[in-house]
Amino acid sequence: MSVFTPVSESQLAAWLKNYSVGTLAALEPIASGIENTNYFVTTSQGRYVLTLFERLPAAELPFYLELMAHLARHGIPCPAPMADLADRYLSVLNGKPATLVTRLAGESLENPGAAECAELGALLARMHLAGRSFGGYLENPRGPKWWRSAADEVRPMLDAARAALLEDELRFQAQYRHPDLPRGAVHADLFRDNALFLGGRISGVFDFYFAGVDCFAYDLAVCANDWCLVDPERDRRLHEAKTLALLGAYHALRPLQRAEREAWPVLLRAAALRFWLSRLHDKHLPRPGELVKVHDPDHFFEILALRAAAGAPAPWVA
Amino acid sequence: MSVFTPVSESQLAAWLKNYSVGTLAALEPIASGIENTNYFVTTSQGRYVLTLFERLPAAELPFYLELMAHLARHGIPCPAPMADLADRYLSVLNGKPATLVTRLAGESLENPGAAECAELGALLARMHLAGRSFGGYLENPRGPKWWRSAADEVRPMLDAARAALLEDELRFQAQYRHPDLPRGAVHADLFRDNALFLGGRISGVFDFYFAGVDCFAYDLAVCANDWCLVDPERDRRLHEAKTLALLGAYHALRPLQRAEREAWPVLLRAAALRFWLSRLHDKHLPRPGELVKVHDPDHFFEILALRAAAGAPAPWVA
Repeated sequence: MSVFTPVSESQLAAWLKNYSVGTLAALEPIASGIENTNYFVTTSQGRYVLTLFERLPAAELPFYLELMAHLARHGIPCPAPMADLADRYLSVLNGKPATLVTRLAGESLENPGAAECAELGALLARMHLAGRSFGGYLENPRGPKWWRSAADEVRPMLDAARAALLEDELRFQAQYRHPDLPRGAVHADLFRDNALFLGGRISGVFDFYFAGVDCFAYDLAVCANDWCLVDPERDRRLHEAKTLALLGAYHALRPLQRAEREAWPVLLRAAALRFWLSRLHDKHLPRPGELVKVHDPDHFFEILALRAAAGAPAPWVA
Repeated sequence: MSVFTPVSESQLAAWLKNYSVGTLAALEPIASGIENTNYFVTTSQGRYVLTLFERLPAAELPFYLELMAHLARHGIPCPAPMADLADRYLSVLNGKPATLVTRLAGESLENPGAAECAELGALLARMHLAGRSFGGYLENPRGPKWWRSAADEVRPMLDAARAALLEDELRFQAQYRHPDLPRGAVHADLFRDNALFLGGRISGVFDFYFAGVDCFAYDLAVCANDWCLVDPERDRRLHEAKTLALLGAYHALRPLQRAEREAWPVLLRAAALRFWLSRLHDKHLPRPGELVKVHDPDHFFEILALRAAAGAPAPWVA
């Protein structure tokens, strides 16, 4: 249960007077989410999600909200932040920075097939293309700098095998900074539970609170490591048909450059490293009072080990 | 049938490559509308309306589109213009300025009751409040200056009774310029066929192509003259319960000032005059090649005569 800051109906009804979204009809806490407090909000006018930001740096919030607003007005089915009467996407509720965004229809899929991976790939390409005209800038907050500081914090808790893989991977990744790859605003956390489907079509992508500017192909690698596994519980290799569906649908709309294809094995490992590190951090260094279910870090330890064992990229990449 | 500029599926499919809204699934001309060419457009991503602007001045288009975008991101259920890959709401299709906006769900009501008039009033108040932070400016293009030029054009076609009412009303209105009334962006054409309802709630307002900056209460007067008649065909007096529902719901969200209440009878006449003149103009001075069904001007001649006969405003207004 991830409500860190409770909000009552009367508190919300008063707060909504600063908006043009109608009057409050229903308020329902959302159990998932590990970074923020979230509620479903229904008004006389529509369905929304209320988010109170619990620990994201205040300076980063405008990037996330402006990015969602930008993508929404380009037709990307992502939550659209509602502006208040002072024309701001962000205000304060119960002492926390807070925002109200549109709620999307659809359901997350636990076992997406190749068709759904193709839907995702096409949407990701459209999102990257739409994001090119976005003026905001935030370095990916879970990029190489963060890897190193997180590694320093979790290293003491690791056994020998895991410590060795971590050091090897940090050393390996340090050889690649991908200066030639196309970059822009990327979601960087588009796992299955951050996408919605309706009638076989992708109807929503949400939770942009790890977004940042990074290589477009890195965004694809994050998705592949979650959406395209042979079996997320038992066989974490990439499922060839699903992976090709993801990449093929993307490529049809935003053709992948040769440099992106060459960097693909490195990016898959970078994406695995990032989520292994954050899960290790959440497990070994929980925040005080945290009530959140911790995801098993070993899931990504195995993914990283598999991707690394799949072979270093061809020498002409380096 | 109001398709002045035909658009083929292949032309549209090519044009949509400049957008992030998915691929074309269906294209269907829209018969209503007298100013623009409109199509329903369905893509793999959603439902839209394509508009090609046939005669609106190019300089005014950004005001309409930016206003809709502003209101949409404040939660007003109006069409949201889609930005293209160059981040523009307006581009060119088949030689015409063109835009793609979201399509709203719901149906127009021919016979709204008091409850629906209250829904409209509340939405209008929210729209006016949300519009206060809108930075664009366009003088109402169908305001007093336009009345006078339109009157000059249609005067020769009028019989004695109608010519007399027109002169009387222009002289009467010239006494009132309402400098003290709250002003802002108003829709100015929110007739029943420009609103949609779904499940008893107002689900959309559209066709902002007569919007401009004018008195907020004028917007209410335009609505009252269309939504709140005793019987639009046989008795064009205001239906008291419907009118009070419209004004009461509005007032609850944006309290009407004393000056606005005092100006109400004048504004009802101004709103009737404006639509009488435009219908006279459309009837007697049709554009070449026009195929559009002309609305009967006498509907608004009678409304204006009734409102004028209802008595001049109390002397303390002048």
